[in-house]
Amino acid sequence: MIPSLTLPATLHTSARELTLRRATENDLAALMRLLADDPISAARGDQADASDTEAYRSALLEITADAGNELLVVTDDGGELMGTMQLTRIPGMARRGSTRLLVEAVRVRSDTRSGGIGTAMMRWVTDTAAPALGASLVQLTSDEARKDAHRFYERLGFVGSHRGFKYPIPSSAGSK
Amino acid sequence: MIPSLTLPATLHTSARELTLRRATENDLAALMRLLADDPISAARGDQADASDTEAYRSALLEITADAGNELLVVTDDGGELMGTMQLTRIPGMARRGSTRLLVEAVRVRSDTRSGGIGTAMMRWVTDTAAPALGASLVQLTSDEARKDAHRFYERLGFVGSHRGFKYPIPSSAGSK
Repeated sequence: MIPSLTLPATLHTSARELTLRRATENDLAALMRLLADDPISAARGDQADASDTEAYRSALLEITADAGNELLVVTDDGGELMGTMQLTRIPGMARRGSTRLLVEAVRVRSDTRSGGIGTAMMRWVTDTAAPALGASLVQLTSDEARKDAHRFYERLGFVGSHRGFKYPIPSSAGSK
Repeated sequence: MIPSLTLPATLHTSARELTLRRATENDLAALMRLLADDPISAARGDQADASDTEAYRSALLEITADAGNELLVVTDDGGELMGTMQLTRIPGMARRGSTRLLVEAVRVRSDTRSGGIGTAMMRWVTDTAAPALGASLVQLTSDEARKDAHRFYERLGFVGSHRGFKYPIPSSAGSK
């Protein structure tokens, strides 16, 4: 949890009002379904398998206990989970000692996409969260296969100026 | 400072031994020169200008006080700064609750490049730091203009599978 973020907040789309709030352990099952509701994530192992519940719970508790990380959920007026994203505040030396705000694991429920939820989430990040955290740069990476997502970020004013590299650690070396 | 990293460490290149250690405030001037010793960084404002010293000092102190961030320097046997990088440990929900290790601001002194220092630094990240931190993924972004750096990361086994997007926050909104 990043204490200086003012939450919950109200997000406005053209059709409705949604609530953006901190995730809690009660959101665990819905978050697992949301992560699995995406073919690229599912191919990486996010399949809402009950046997993975404890791994997700442990991650959720670690994120919410961390003062540099915020796990967020978007809910409708019935309390249904519509989206999620994680923010990480990163102090840094480059760009004259700039603080960055990293956005990871942005997901919007597949049956509500194109409804403006993703736009409202990212506008809150750039216009509210980043200034509140003293961040001068918001950054994220998106899989090269997500061409629709790239157009979405470009429409919002993000510039795809970088290549994102990943190096998987063999499971015998990492703890999970 | 990330307490679970065992530092200082010795890095081996074919020609010599170097020391990898945590940065301290005493490294400030040398770090500013190292960040400016790169045309892309210099174009973004890292010009080792004395008037920026307090901004860099404040960033350095914030990084070293943060349990999720580590600012590292590489020195030769005369204590001269040869390289730097920053690590951020990020707990996350995606990929079944995976912890990621983000590498930012990797710099090697321009007159010692191709000497194996960068390779030794990144091998320490993937083979020592990531397992020690329970991270199953190391990730970084590199400016599309840095074609030599891309080939360097690919030789080490990194996969350039993602597009990196940046969104600069107007300075009137962010604190710096």
